[in-house]
Amino acid sequence: MWNKGLIIGWIWSCCLATVAFGQQHPTLTLTKEGVQDIRKQMPQAPLFMETLEQMQQKIDKVVREEIAVPVPKDPAGGYTHEKHKENSRLMYQASVLYQLTGEQKYAGFVTELLEAYAEMYPTLLEHPIKKSYAPGKLFWQLLNESVWLVYVAQAYDGVYDYLTEKQRERITTDLLKPFAHFLSAENPEVFNRIHNHGVWAVAAVGMTGYVLEDQALVNKALYGMELTAGIAHKEKGEAGFYTHLDALFSPDGYYTEGPYYHRYALTPFMLFALAIENNEPKRQIFKYRDGILLKTVETLLQLTNVDGTFFPFNDAIKGMDYTTSSLVAGVDLLYAYGKKDPALLSIVEEQNTVLLNQAGLNVALALADGKQQPFNRTSLVITDGSSGDEGGIGILRTGKGKEQWTTSMKYTSHGLSHGHFDKLSLLMYEGAQEILQDYGAVRYVNVKQKEGGRYLPENKTWAHQTIAHNTLIVDETSHYDGDKRKSSKHHGVLVYAQQEKEFQALYAMDTTAYSGVRMGRKLVMIEGTSDREAVMLDVFSAESEEVHQYDLAYHYQGQVMNADFIESTANQQMQVLGQSNGYQHLWKEGEGISQESNTTFTWLKGNRFYSIASINETGTRYLLGRLGANDPKFNLRRDPVLIQRRTGKHARFINVIIPHGGRNQVTELTNRTETPIAEVKELTLMKGYEGVTITWKNGEELQVFWSTEKTMTKDKHQIEYKGYKYQWEGPVYVSAMK
Amino acid sequence: MWNKGLIIGWIWSCCLATVAFGQQHPTLTLTKEGVQDIRKQMPQAPLFMETLEQMQQKIDKVVREEIAVPVPKDPAGGYTHEKHKENSRLMYQASVLYQLTGEQKYAGFVTELLEAYAEMYPTLLEHPIKKSYAPGKLFWQLLNESVWLVYVAQAYDGVYDYLTEKQRERITTDLLKPFAHFLSAENPEVFNRIHNHGVWAVAAVGMTGYVLEDQALVNKALYGMELTAGIAHKEKGEAGFYTHLDALFSPDGYYTEGPYYHRYALTPFMLFALAIENNEPKRQIFKYRDGILLKTVETLLQLTNVDGTFFPFNDAIKGMDYTTSSLVAGVDLLYAYGKKDPALLSIVEEQNTVLLNQAGLNVALALADGKQQPFNRTSLVITDGSSGDEGGIGILRTGKGKEQWTTSMKYTSHGLSHGHFDKLSLLMYEGAQEILQDYGAVRYVNVKQKEGGRYLPENKTWAHQTIAHNTLIVDETSHYDGDKRKSSKHHGVLVYAQQEKEFQALYAMDTTAYSGVRMGRKLVMIEGTSDREAVMLDVFSAESEEVHQYDLAYHYQGQVMNADFIESTANQQMQVLGQSNGYQHLWKEGEGISQESNTTFTWLKGNRFYSIASINETGTRYLLGRLGANDPKFNLRRDPVLIQRRTGKHARFINVIIPHGGRNQVTELTNRTETPIAEVKELTLMKGYEGVTITWKNGEELQVFWSTEKTMTKDKHQIEYKGYKYQWEGPVYVSAMK
Ligand SMILES: [Ca+2]
Ligand SMILES: [Ca+2]
Ligand SMILES: [Ca+2]
Ligand SMILES: [Mg+2]
Ligand SMILES: [Mg+2]
Ligand SMILES: [Mg+2]
Ligand SMILES: [Mg+2]
Repeated sequence: MWNKGLIIGWIWSCCLATVAFGQQHPTLTLTKEGVQDIRKQMPQAPLFMETLEQMQQKIDKVVREEIAVPVPKDPAGGYTHEKHKENSRLMYQASVLYQLTGEQKYAGFVTELLEAYAEMYPTLLEHPIKKSYAPGKLFWQLLNESVWLVYVAQAYDGVYDYLTEKQRERITTDLLKPFAHFLSAENPEVFNRIHNHGVWAVAAVGMTGYVLEDQALVNKALYGMELTAGIAHKEKGEAGFYTHLDALFSPDGYYTEGPYYHRYALTPFMLFALAIENNEPKRQIFKYRDGILLKTVETLLQLTNVDGTFFPFNDAIKGMDYTTSSLVAGVDLLYAYGKKDPALLSIVEEQNTVLLNQAGLNVALALADGKQQPFNRTSLVITDGSSGDEGGIGILRTGKGKEQWTTSMKYTSHGLSHGHFDKLSLLMYEGAQEILQDYGAVRYVNVKQKEGGRYLPENKTWAHQTIAHNTLIVDETSHYDGDKRKSSKHHGVLVYAQQEKEFQALYAMDTTAYSGVRMGRKLVMIEGTSDREAVMLDVFSAESEEVHQYDLAYHYQGQVMNADFIESTANQQMQVLGQSNGYQHLWKEGEGISQESNTTFTWLKGNRFYSIASINETGTRYLLGRLGANDPKFNLRRDPVLIQRRTGKHARFINVIIPHGGRNQVTELTNRTETPIAEVKELTLMKGYEGVTITWKNGEELQVFWSTEKTMTKDKHQIEYKGYKYQWEGPVYVSAMK
Repeated sequence: MWNKGLIIGWIWSCCLATVAFGQQHPTLTLTKEGVQDIRKQMPQAPLFMETLEQMQQKIDKVVREEIAVPVPKDPAGGYTHEKHKENSRLMYQASVLYQLTGEQKYAGFVTELLEAYAEMYPTLLEHPIKKSYAPGKLFWQLLNESVWLVYVAQAYDGVYDYLTEKQRERITTDLLKPFAHFLSAENPEVFNRIHNHGVWAVAAVGMTGYVLEDQALVNKALYGMELTAGIAHKEKGEAGFYTHLDALFSPDGYYTEGPYYHRYALTPFMLFALAIENNEPKRQIFKYRDGILLKTVETLLQLTNVDGTFFPFNDAIKGMDYTTSSLVAGVDLLYAYGKKDPALLSIVEEQNTVLLNQAGLNVALALADGKQQPFNRTSLVITDGSSGDEGGIGILRTGKGKEQWTTSMKYTSHGLSHGHFDKLSLLMYEGAQEILQDYGAVRYVNVKQKEGGRYLPENKTWAHQTIAHNTLIVDETSHYDGDKRKSSKHHGVLVYAQQEKEFQALYAMDTTAYSGVRMGRKLVMIEGTSDREAVMLDVFSAESEEVHQYDLAYHYQGQVMNADFIESTANQQMQVLGQSNGYQHLWKEGEGISQESNTTFTWLKGNRFYSIASINETGTRYLLGRLGANDPKFNLRRDPVLIQRRTGKHARFINVIIPHGGRNQVTELTNRTETPIAEVKELTLMKGYEGVTITWKNGEELQVFWSTEKTMTKDKHQIEYKGYKYQWEGPVYVSAMK
């Protein structure tokens, strides 16, 4: 498939060359025609005008000041680093202002800086800070170098018409050409790397190629380059932008590192794609691979809670959301080159800014026309892996708007260096509030005191470990023994996802995380009625030939309202829960066993109550853990966890999770502070079937049946239970009786 | 003074009797004339109409249903308890709707219920739940009985004109008279009690007196009643509404139990006062004792953070704010009978509801006219004690609006049964966010699982104790040995409060909390400039003839960013910090000593950084504590505390507290994550003077000087320091140099 695309690609690119080049400037993310259009229409697009005016206010101050182009010297955070970074953004922004307002002062400012860089660049050797695997010249690492050129290529494009022939000549010869050469021919191992560092390099070189009318450069960017001696020669199709599009996203647009790194990687994809579209429209880059560039933005938008905050899969700093500047380009281009989904406009409203190009104009005009619709998040299944066969993520959602209840189960591949050992782990939100949390990464970005903002040691010793997740931990070890190389070879498997009017079900398995242990997790989310809440049945099974200790962890948050199974608590001293694999960071606050058939755990978060009703099996030990042990630098939050522990060859944990009731701190009224569930019971059914009854305190009974053998959507089932016959299609069935 | 008021009162009441009575109904919280006025004007008052319509929507449903007047049986929370409580509110609300809309169905509903109660009441004996010191008939405790009658007296008043003479006769004879008799003559010890239970009883009886034109009842309510045999005879002036007004508030309107109970006690004061005003306007009840009724509302409004949340002094459930229904009456009446302060209207906007009477109408009309102004909280000193000589509260504020920085110091009397042992303790907020918290009460109101919503054992063992507060703890004991009787005899003393343009200072002392220990706390809040943040200097001194262990506690919240003085942390096991007086609830997470002249503690809460820079003295031990030890029911939040510990005869803790910088979780930009303070140094000055230098990292230096001997505002001072002469007036001086 790829080969075909490649051949067509080559034909296009050679034929289009004469069409594409010789065009007028700007030609990358703005076009000459587009600018005329924008100037005409922007007064009718208030959000576009606001964005423009804000930029203008900022740049108007800057152009009055002396420029500074210091000799590179400092590491990230240092003066010369930050100055060069800033200069590239300022040049880009001033060039946009020049295009949209026609004011010469902006072009003059860009020209002055471009000339200063053209003056200095030929004198530069490798950056004096030698800490990167790929050092730059202006910056300590090549990544920053690439980002710089992405902005500066656009800046040059924007002021092209303003420059004299002699200025163009000099900027091209002394700055842009050698800069692109340095990023490609001189650093082929980065340029050909399929990785977000590679995408930035490719985008920078490709955009420079277009602006310089250098098809050879463009081709390198699109298809990769043959490598120089000493480094293995790569086949065509193993590098370049197309390969990035093929390899870094699943067919559903999932980015294997997860949403936090997804949004970071998105910018160069989007900007380079726009440049390709503007210069070689016949490539139909936004339609490539079934429209993967647009699909991946859609998918990223679905991986958010109702506040737009990204699911914190893998190394993720919690709190990052879709108003980030990386997604401004994503959303505007998705709107412009996609189906003009009016729901995107409500995200643009939250972003409160648009791209200052034609896509941004279109979005702002649509908003001005009042076309926005609410953005709806849906239940869905997302595959991982470039071929879509490396597991994925299932998301169950119920309810609309700000109250939506969301649960995701993760059975992806590892997720590169930022991956966590978290097969079959859950995230659960009610509205924007976390019910069951993923800890996220242990890192305080840009906080000097915390190791300069880098990942902290506890990121590996806690956040990466399986116990840091809402899943099963066998023998107090992490999945794949916490070995990234092993983990990277495997992934979970979706057995089925079923969506009915009254319920939704999701069943995923994994047989690779622990050798000799077969794990399966079944979620059945049953819709609420006017008489009772929605409820989540969570059945986690593990089977082995050997005896193991099985720990099922629930990372609740807030205050414990009820934990009757706890018999002893830490009073005078508190012990650590374990010695390694993350357990060394947990204190044991309390533990107990129960003789009852069910146990209930209720907690309060904010003003809402949550309960987990569990079928108790003899010997189940309940542990309440608290983070903070072996944390000498106080890097960890003091978050709690409930652990259900069983020992044996097999274990089956049946839990029912339910949000209920609430309190009002001003009226002091409360309602349904206690779990509305009276009993959860496992059913004995005919061979090939299993089931659970959930009995409500109001007398209502829910039967949940499922087939253990036939798991296809169209499979038909018939069983008898308590004298009633039940017939259904699909693996799971839920029956309500009063 | 009181006697004089009493005599005049008697004269008025006898002379006014003929004027007040024989009036038309309604006459309590609504008046006939007022109703005519309201009906005419309410269409111009949208908030009034919204409030009315909401009530109408609710009551329209209710009047269609069967009424229920069950035989009393259940405790609080049970069916009969909640039903009688609800019925009283419904009758009141329906009677208001009848007055304002004229619709007969509302009056019919009230009549039906009144007759049903008149039918049942004579048959009732004491309530079967015998748990209260003062049992009722409809309810297990008299308090609920009083509240019921406050509403029902108003309901009867509202439908008076609708009732036949015979119906009035029956309701009066079988319900209202015996009910009022039961609350007064049959329960004199509650009726005469100076306490919020007493106020409710007095209001109920007094309002019934007015509505029945029974001056004897009214007089009992106003002046108390002579007690029956077997109970000590009280002098006039020792009971009744006037005595409550004299005894329960300080001249500044402070209610000794603190804001949380203040707002609870406020309703009967306000409603009865309004009834007095409507029936005996010449009493000028709202002007009594320099307008104490209005003053106390003003004071309560000042005891809030920028979100209107009450300072959680003493037993207080955190989160209660001024939108509570108790303060709707307070604010509306303060506006109507006070100076028509337009700032109150912005509070009304937040409350989003008004009283459905003339005061509420006036407020809603003013709002409709757009008269509202922002509500400003100011620095102020509030006295405690009925004569204003029992200590008090000092509040320092800087900045405006939602960013205001607020610090209070508490040196009040104990605060009755809900008081905490917290002399010289601080609360600190930045905007709505707590910087240094008071734990509040250990209680989950109306949460069944938590002992039915009652105060939990840890309320006494933790929340009442001194270590639960931001103050000094000597020898790990609480103030007054945690003995309420001892504590109730004493209070702190304000030495001075000074307000200048560039700084504010507050100095309070206490010599009673620990025998033989003299404690003083000096706060100097220095305003920020364009170059640097505002900063709080906190000097806490303790002196004794004996050697003691002195612990200064800071209840910070959030994550530790920097605590370089910590040398060892709990890794494998964690020990409890102490054995009693609250220390048994704290884990010792870490401790250390420092050799530096200064130590710095920095934490992150939300997206803001806070630092405490401390002058280190040899031997000072720094402890990081965490709540949760000896808490078998998980009743306590896992909140942290920093403790600075010194041993010796004297101790002086000099700390500088400063909010700085911030982070943005979406842009990931941070600024000033580290304390901007370079050094804090104690100065050696001429005898009678002390001082501190605060040096900023930007080079700025602040000198803070104060006299240890002359503490009056008009005292003049002159000292020499480093060759400069400084002259000033008032106890504290701050000088800035760059
Ligand atoms: Ca994680
Ligand atoms: Ca047990
Ligand atoms: Ca307290
Ligand atoms: Mg960077
Ligand atoms: Mg994870
Ligand atoms: Mg009550
Ligand atoms: Mg207190």
